[in-house]
Amino acid sequence: MTPPHPAWLPVPAFRPVGSRRVRVTGTGLLVTTVRDEVAAAVAAHGGALVDDGPADLELVLVGDGGSGEFDASGGFGGSEEFTVARAGTTSVRAGGGAGLLYGFHHVVRLGEAAFAADFAPRRHAPRQPIRMLDHWDNTEVHPFMGQVERGYAGNSIFYADGRVREDLDRVAEYARLLGSIGVNRVGLNNVNVHRAEARLLTDLLPDVVRLADVFRPHGVRVHLSVGFSSPVTLGGLPTADPLDPAVREWWDRATAAVYAAIPDFGGYVVKADSEGRPGPFAYGRDHADGANLLARALAPFGGTVFWRAFVYDHRQDWRDRATDRARAAHDHFAPLDGAFDPNVVLQVKYGPMDFQAREPVSPVIAALPRTRLAVEFQVTQEYTGQQKHVCHLVPQWSEILRFPLDGRTVGDLVDGVVAVSNVGLDRFWTGHPLAQANLFGFGRLAWDDRLAPDAVLDEWIGLTFEDPAARGPLRELMDDSWPTYERYTAPLGVGFMVTPGHHYGPSVDGYEYSPWGTYHFADRDGVGVDRTRATGTGFTGQYPAPWRDVYESPETCPDELLLFFHHVPYGHVLHSGKTVVQHVYDTHFEGVEEVVRMARVWAGLEGRVPDGVFGRVAELLAEQLRCATEWRDQVNTYFFRKSGVPDAHGRTIH
Amino acid sequence: MTPPHPAWLPVPAFRPVGSRRVRVTGTGLLVTTVRDEVAAAVAAHGGALVDDGPADLELVLVGDGGSGEFDASGGFGGSEEFTVARAGTTSVRAGGGAGLLYGFHHVVRLGEAAFAADFAPRRHAPRQPIRMLDHWDNTEVHPFMGQVERGYAGNSIFYADGRVREDLDRVAEYARLLGSIGVNRVGLNNVNVHRAEARLLTDLLPDVVRLADVFRPHGVRVHLSVGFSSPVTLGGLPTADPLDPAVREWWDRATAAVYAAIPDFGGYVVKADSEGRPGPFAYGRDHADGANLLARALAPFGGTVFWRAFVYDHRQDWRDRATDRARAAHDHFAPLDGAFDPNVVLQVKYGPMDFQAREPVSPVIAALPRTRLAVEFQVTQEYTGQQKHVCHLVPQWSEILRFPLDGRTVGDLVDGVVAVSNVGLDRFWTGHPLAQANLFGFGRLAWDDRLAPDAVLDEWIGLTFEDPAARGPLRELMDDSWPTYERYTAPLGVGFMVTPGHHYGPSVDGYEYSPWGTYHFADRDGVGVDRTRATGTGFTGQYPAPWRDVYESPETCPDELLLFFHHVPYGHVLHSGKTVVQHVYDTHFEGVEEVVRMARVWAGLEGRVPDGVFGRVAELLAEQLRCATEWRDQVNTYFFRKSGVPDAHGRTIH
Repeated sequence: MTPPHPAWLPVPAFRPVGSRRVRVTGTGLLVTTVRDEVAAAVAAHGGALVDDGPADLELVLVGDGGSGEFDASGGFGGSEEFTVARAGTTSVRAGGGAGLLYGFHHVVRLGEAAFAADFAPRRHAPRQPIRMLDHWDNTEVHPFMGQVERGYAGNSIFYADGRVREDLDRVAEYARLLGSIGVNRVGLNNVNVHRAEARLLTDLLPDVVRLADVFRPHGVRVHLSVGFSSPVTLGGLPTADPLDPAVREWWDRATAAVYAAIPDFGGYVVKADSEGRPGPFAYGRDHADGANLLARALAPFGGTVFWRAFVYDHRQDWRDRATDRARAAHDHFAPLDGAFDPNVVLQVKYGPMDFQAREPVSPVIAALPRTRLAVEFQVTQEYTGQQKHVCHLVPQWSEILRFPLDGRTVGDLVDGVVAVSNVGLDRFWTGHPLAQANLFGFGRLAWDDRLAPDAVLDEWIGLTFEDPAARGPLRELMDDSWPTYERYTAPLGVGFMVTPGHHYGPSVDGYEYSPWGTYHFADRDGVGVDRTRATGTGFTGQYPAPWRDVYESPETCPDELLLFFHHVPYGHVLHSGKTVVQHVYDTHFEGVEEVVRMARVWAGLEGRVPDGVFGRVAELLAEQLRCATEWRDQVNTYFFRKSGVPDAHGRTIH
Repeated sequence: MTPPHPAWLPVPAFRPVGSRRVRVTGTGLLVTTVRDEVAAAVAAHGGALVDDGPADLELVLVGDGGSGEFDASGGFGGSEEFTVARAGTTSVRAGGGAGLLYGFHHVVRLGEAAFAADFAPRRHAPRQPIRMLDHWDNTEVHPFMGQVERGYAGNSIFYADGRVREDLDRVAEYARLLGSIGVNRVGLNNVNVHRAEARLLTDLLPDVVRLADVFRPHGVRVHLSVGFSSPVTLGGLPTADPLDPAVREWWDRATAAVYAAIPDFGGYVVKADSEGRPGPFAYGRDHADGANLLARALAPFGGTVFWRAFVYDHRQDWRDRATDRARAAHDHFAPLDGAFDPNVVLQVKYGPMDFQAREPVSPVIAALPRTRLAVEFQVTQEYTGQQKHVCHLVPQWSEILRFPLDGRTVGDLVDGVVAVSNVGLDRFWTGHPLAQANLFGFGRLAWDDRLAPDAVLDEWIGLTFEDPAARGPLRELMDDSWPTYERYTAPLGVGFMVTPGHHYGPSVDGYEYSPWGTYHFADRDGVGVDRTRATGTGFTGQYPAPWRDVYESPETCPDELLLFFHHVPYGHVLHSGKTVVQHVYDTHFEGVEEVVRMARVWAGLEGRVPDGVFGRVAELLAEQLRCATEWRDQVNTYFFRKSGVPDAHGRTIH
């Protein structure tokens, strides 16, 4: 079998470190990981790992020698910090193994710059203590969703034939990649917990132990998605009522058994009362009752429950204009602020709908000041091209994390960043080789949301591609790929318009008469969803000032969100000076032209990137162009047929 | 296990015959079948099977004693005839076992009327020598299509776990039902021949022998769907080119092996160059080359090849207005008239598209006077409610078989009627108990297309339901159910508007931007497909006079087909005096009201039909009402949003 692509950790990326004389001090599992990294790097590049004597060291990596990389308090933020300096010799000093590992990779990313001019000590600490990737992996292959739900890179790297794989080399490589970018938590199974996967909590627990053992040396704690009705389905109890003492006991016992096997287990991820999953509503309890039940089972061991706020009516009647899915999470959770235990993290999707290319920031993030929150992204490109399209999402996440709410940013308000992973057994990990940049960038932004997205992209390109001449074109191709994707898909924040079920490719009316609450309400006169307080669903009222007013008026609402908040006539003039319908036409023609340019840039990289990468990306760009053209033509035709307004520039609309 | 429902052959239906003194003469397999039927009937109802002496006989059934119920010439129409008379005693005389069987069931259907006033001898012969049901059954369960493709009544009665079932009692019951209505051919497997099912022709042939043995006593010959590329996939040859001698030899050998095992095997059913199936086009050959290849392998044994005319481009570009799927079968096959061997039957779907609730009759039926044709229907309700909706299709088939072309009717022009069966393991056979009427009516119309649909319905009701008070309401509920279904679904012949993939429930734009060639082209001004010679695709030109001119003009085109042939403004006034858009609103409101009435009629039958039937139908009527309401609201809203024209009667359009 071909070995997997090294992603951003190819051998040449270690040359600056590996060609030098390096000392690693300290003990403990993660210090050993750092030592092994250094040993491999110097073996490849002619440097030396120098254990004794003051022998012309060029890099010293000083761990504190403590063994407590995972402390039972559940917070190991302290030990994740490191300080880097250069005064003749470059040094990294950390209070724990995790910090040393992150400091080591910081130096790898700096490259030769780490060994150039002296610089004063600089302390580095993560902005978010929680930096987590969720895997929507099933142990078995689901007939419709495949093995990895919303996965676009082959089957699960964790599971085969209903069990954890025998050979976990691939998982170890993955854990190393995550450790190198500071990801410190991973959810091992699909939030939609099916019957087979439920058993990971009980009889398959020894399998989970094996995964935990593989992730641990890289500073990554494992978590399980659990079904809220497990006391019934696994335990045989008559109820899963969170206030029932037998239910509490069941969770306490099950959780204690997990910690007996995995002392540094991270906790549970729960999708409850959501899209058909069981939850506390069935027992007349609220989500604080539900979350606290699990939180109290986890608390003695320092575990956390990640409780998803993605609760809405997925059997809505499209005729019912009063119900607004966008309101649901706030309606359900804002009243519960203060009711959650301290080891509950409410996991909130970044937008009020579902991982669209463009949504406003979820108002839930400003609505629960007394609750720990994590914002949830999709590294997996469910609605953003499914790893067939280049769509570099780091700028989107950056924009969201920097979004101001009540004088702070989203990044300030949350305790963590969680995302759905995009990896699978594919030899490039992510299907599209360039989608590795999203995985890398997620880790980097989770560590520090103030990093500039283009700087993160440059880091990734610099590590991944050896030929300096490839870097400019790669950046050109990738850095605006999210706005490009937005241009040729659903316009002005209206969202969806995807093919029902698999969510790839256009279907303008695909969800228009569905029970999913995702409508655009286009008619012969106009399009968009009236979510104002004045005449609509009142969703704008869930925002604090100034957004509640900025979004309320079409005059102040940003163009890119206009149709999310307002139903306007096709002739409505945007801030850009264009009418809505002309904007639709223009952006769709432009989007396709940009994909043509991307393909041209890529063609120029032949010979400058490895052949396997070149060929795969070239093929996928052809598919992206085909699909973008389909989006352009379907959306333009749809709005031309509805509005009757011809394109101002006379281009072909079918 | 609950025994299956007796359908139209319950014990009470045999009382008129079974309470009398009956003689059966003649020998042979089918005469034995008749004798066994009589024996069972008299045992149940107190009559007698009288073998010797002139003992007050009330019914004599006279077979000719020949053993040749299946003659090797491939035509056994002669032996299917019978003559029935009454002169004191009722008599049935037949030239063969099949005729005797049909005559016996004729008397069963007559009931007491067969034993009332005398009547002169009347000869009965089938109008169509070919009366065939195709089963789209797979030996294995297909992940998307299930075991029975487009089946709505559970898994296959033939197959389990990749083989023919051990227990064939259910198949024997089915064969008896088919024999009783004169069906004389059955296709055993899906026309989409997958890898597993291909082996029915070779290593699973002993399994097919077992099925043939079960069908034979009821006068039903078995057929296999075969893949055109079988010489490659099964035979390991490098080609399936129909002109290649090794390919010919392979088919000759395979076919000889089938006939060695099943001397009365009926022949092959072939879907070639259609929706991705292999065919002669791959070798630069035409469909006559392809069909004749198989015909010549079958000819020495009296076998027939059923070659489907369902050939079209299923990867059409929706932007391409010049390509018209409706034209495809005629374009492909009309030029080949005269080129087919005499044992080829070209199997033509009744309409140019695909089994819609309303289509014009296929012009192919008038276009190949020197070719044997069969018209193909769907008893399975793929596009007509999937056996969740009451939709009595016999009036549709009657209308088509009576449709005049070149001074004759469709029934005159064809040599056979073929349909896709609607049965499965469901205890009512057909999912919806009232869908049994379609299976019954298919056999009856295939025997005699001049029968009145309401008379056929009355026959079925009379046989199936014992309580005479149930019969009027049942007729009221069922006889207009096809026009009702048409009213609440796609309007004025435009077709489709179904959910892609499973084809159940509305999706007005579901196929509008698809590669399937099934579009309605609705915009803000109008709707419909211009298939005229003057300004459209020219499809009208495929019809003989007068239809080529009747359909060409919106002035003469029948309302119910207007949007199939013309793109018209919403304000276009129909012959009914209504505008197109008001017609859409009115029919959709009416259709739902009719379903409400149907449910009310059914509610009145509680206690008059068996409880199991009552409950099942009541449940399904609730689903039909839900689905019809969804159709009404989606279609009305869609056209209101497009046209902006309000309902003249101010009813709610969402």
